[in-house]
Amino acid sequence: MRISDLSRESGVPIPTIKYYLREGLLPAGERTARNQATYDATHLRRLHLIRVLVEVGGLSLLAVRRVLAALERGGAPLHEVLAEAHTALRRDTPGEDPALAPARAETDAWLTELGWNLGDGSPARDDLAAALLALRGLGWEVGPDVFERYARHASALAEAEIAYVAAADRPETAVEATVIGTVVFERALVALRRLAQEHHSRTRLG
Amino acid sequence: MRISDLSRESGVPIPTIKYYLREGLLPAGERTARNQATYDATHLRRLHLIRVLVEVGGLSLLAVRRVLAALERGGAPLHEVLAEAHTALRRDTPGEDPALAPARAETDAWLTELGWNLGDGSPARDDLAAALLALRGLGWEVGPDVFERYARHASALAEAEIAYVAAADRPETAVEATVIGTVVFERALVALRRLAQEHHSRTRLG
Repeated sequence: MRISDLSRESGVPIPTIKYYLREGLLPAGERTARNQATYDATHLRRLHLIRVLVEVGGLSLLAVRRVLAALERGGAPLHEVLAEAHTALRRDTPGEDPALAPARAETDAWLTELGWNLGDGSPARDDLAAALLALRGLGWEVGPDVFERYARHASALAEAEIAYVAAADRPETAVEATVIGTVVFERALVALRRLAQEHHSRTRLG
Repeated sequence: MRISDLSRESGVPIPTIKYYLREGLLPAGERTARNQATYDATHLRRLHLIRVLVEVGGLSLLAVRRVLAALERGGAPLHEVLAEAHTALRRDTPGEDPALAPARAETDAWLTELGWNLGDGSPARDDLAAALLALRGLGWEVGPDVFERYARHASALAEAEIAYVAAADRPETAVEATVIGTVVFERALVALRRLAQEHHSRTRLG
């Protein structure tokens, strides 16, 4: 298909597509004439993926580039690519609190107690410690086990997700499914939790 | 305490505190001299809350203002304040897709099937529809029931959260706990899901 068809099918304006091509986020099409190229389903799929990362995941183009690079490094074990994708997907946080390190020692010890098999560098470890620190700043005198229920539900969801990914026929599909799962199902989960809060609040207190 | 103590205790720099005072995000202290005021624990607590909303929730100051306004409107039923806080906490999304309305009709019908008691205006309804639309753009031919498992776990978490909030002694505490719960536990949940993905991926495929 031509660039105009690609734009119509994907909903991405032509100047944006040209920008992605220049930036290497989208592979070049096949040259058919001096000033013309033709694109196929892989281009369309990639454009949809970029759109999801930007619009649903709220990622910057720099972060999109990091995610796509993680996707393209085939061959690495899934959990490594997952860690790279998580790093790329992580929202940048303003300057780190010096109190983060002791809080992280606590949450790390608790994750070990849970028996979770994790690398040291997982960026979500810091996010969990930051959440504990935030609660304490607000006067909640709690330990990491305040998150116990959340860990249980998160683990049940992740177990099903990894089972689904493990059943994929090709590694690229598996990794792409994981990135989509992280971004899209995360948004769905957050939305559903808010809706469920409203439902239970109306039902119980309404 | 003086503004310098407030700054030291909260970790928020004095110029930022002065900015919050000018903008009305933080109530004025009690005047003790022409150019001096004294602050108490309520100011410290409010500063911690603003910091959590900005640093953990990633909110703009405009959104912080909306959340604080929702907190200050005491007396309204919890689910209304919750809806206002959710609106304020919602990340702004770039221009809406014309395909959103039909997708929302599907997700809304599915939420009704689940028996969830929801207002029409809940902003998370759009987020759920956007997630469905994103999956379809990526070639997943799925209906809203692809989120069934997420709805079940989200509902279990929200039920416990609302029970906790309902047990609070004062309505202000209840509403503040809900906002904190939305922001801080949401971040913890997202972090734990990513960690659990890594754990199950290493355990199953490592």
